Amino acid sequence: MTDSQIDVVISEVGPRDGLQSIKRIMPTEAKLLWINALAKAGLREIEVGSFVSPKLLPQMADTGDIVRATVSIPGVTILALAPNLRGAEGAIAAGVHKVTMPVSASREHSMANIRKSPEEAVDEVRKVRALLDAQPAETRPGLEIGISTAFGCSLQGLVDEDWVIQLAVMLVEAGAESVGLSDTAGHANPAQVRRLFKRLNAELGDKAGAAHFHNTRGQGLANVVAALDVGVKTFDASQGGLGGCPYAPGASGNVVTEDLVFLLEAMGLRTGVNVERLLTARAIILEGLPGEHIYGNVPDAGLPKGFVYAGAPA
Amino acid sequence: MTDSQIDVVISEVGPRDGLQSIKRIMPTEAKLLWINALAKAGLREIEVGSFVSPKLLPQMADTGDIVRATVSIPGVTILALAPNLRGAEGAIAAGVHKVTMPVSASREHSMANIRKSPEEAVDEVRKVRALLDAQPAETRPGLEIGISTAFGCSLQGLVDEDWVIQLAVMLVEAGAESVGLSDTAGHANPAQVRRLFKRLNAELGDKAGAAHFHNTRGQGLANVVAALDVGVKTFDASQGGLGGCPYAPGASGNVVTEDLVFLLEAMGLRTGVNVERLLTARAIILEGLPGEHIYGNVPDAGLPKGFVYAGAPA
Repeated sequence: MTDSQIDVVISEVGPRDGLQSIKRIMPTEAKLLWINALAKAGLREIEVGSFVSPKLLPQMADTGDIVRATVSIPGVTILALAPNLRGAEGAIAAGVHKVTMPVSASREHSMANIRKSPEEAVDEVRKVRALLDAQPAETRPGLEIGISTAFGCSLQGLVDEDWVIQLAVMLVEAGAESVGLSDTAGHANPAQVRRLFKRLNAELGDKAGAAHFHNTRGQGLANVVAALDVGVKTFDASQGGLGGCPYAPGASGNVVTEDLVFLLEAMGLRTGVNVERLLTARAIILEGLPGEHIYGNVPDAGLPKGFVYAGAPA
Repeated sequence: MTDSQIDVVISEVGPRDGLQSIKRIMPTEAKLLWINALAKAGLREIEVGSFVSPKLLPQMADTGDIVRATVSIPGVTILALAPNLRGAEGAIAAGVHKVTMPVSASREHSMANIRKSPEEAVDEVRKVRALLDAQPAETRPGLEIGISTAFGCSLQGLVDEDWVIQLAVMLVEAGAESVGLSDTAGHANPAQVRRLFKRLNAELGDKAGAAHFHNTRGQGLANVVAALDVGVKTFDASQGGLGGCPYAPGASGNVVTEDLVFLLEAMGLRTGVNVERLLTARAIILEGLPGEHIYGNVPDAGLPKGFVYAGAPA
């Protein structure tokens, strides 16, 4: 399937968002097996790790090696998260295709998380932009931003919608190539999702980015349906729903990739991703992290009788 | 809250759909405590049992007693399922407010389930209509039909959409006061939900009934969002997601009432149901069925900081 035959891009964040929330460390070899299996299942964007202090997140200490070993997988865009300029330096050195930076809309979350105000985080984006602009054009990574806590915050509660949109505009001015909205702690509802992405599209045009939903309160796919309605074309998801929210013990984390692929394909939207191959990739997670609890209803129930992929020949 | 202040009716099916899928029998006293707690939480429609052979479903053997003990709860419509004329006789004798009859769109499912074709099931509805018409008007129960396997069938796979709509029309002609669509085994997707309910509305007008979604493949709330878009106003749900699908071990069953209430209220749609009181009712299930596994993301994660009910004073 060529890119022009894809209706919706699923950006797999399991190897980053998923693994960083698990205390145990998946061995590098297992990570590489998993990422290759994800690519074989048809995922075209994979966020493979995070350039953060290994003291803070030892699970991500091998991100440089992971990037170097995966950037040449054909047809796959390799992303890595960088929380700041230093992280972006690491990402560039390793040769990522795209740097992704989180900027929190919630002032309290931003201070608690990175000890910076949202405005200071925008300044950091500006510095990363300058660093990227200094790279040779042919190897220069892209820069996308996810606005975290865009739909609400576990610390401060409500987050002002006007401010979220204002921050998105500031981030584009600071040099982001795309700005998406993240429901970091499972606050979002479909009405709010429609409102915010509609405004984001109106303000940013083709720089409006991905939707990143968590399933903390079971609303992940409901919010995807709402986002599709207002034209969102890229969704983050995590295989097995890895990425649990620390505020919600027992609750699953990110939208489950397997369930999302089924939703989209059943709706007639081509993702290029094969569910059966994703199930193979699941086995690799469990080999790399024996006994880990992974989620997903489609993996439990299987594809329904009579199911056909959107892109399947009639 | 008066009925006119309700935007969406949640019809709780746990005491019927949930309990009949669990092998153990919840004692009558526990059922009554649970149903009363559901009513206290604000649910206005409760399906309390099924008039079927106690040999087939001993869990439902006390349905007559349950109906008699609950029909006088103020403001609550008490429903019971009747698969046939004999069941309807029992329901009428016990004094239900509404009889609900399932009719399967899938020929294979219908034969396997009740050894009748869909057309023969329509004939049975006609007989129940005649029986109801023979009752005194002031105590005559209503009659609603749920078309099961309306979105697909585990046995035959795809179910023809034209046929589902044709069957709905036949059922109204046979005397149903409303006809809803049920996703018995978790096949439905939001695009299909919009198509089918749009056609149902167009054909049946105000006789178009409830949406009954299962969460077998995690798509329950996504399908609710789609159904809301095309004007569906009544949704079946089951507290704790009770009602597991026999074809999907480990998968949760009905849409979880707690998660549905959160979805709707967060979207600004008034349900009259209080989530905190639902959590109290959960404890009663576990007292009645110790160790039973019940589902729900909102019960695990809690309501988010800053949450306000749609009907709450500003």
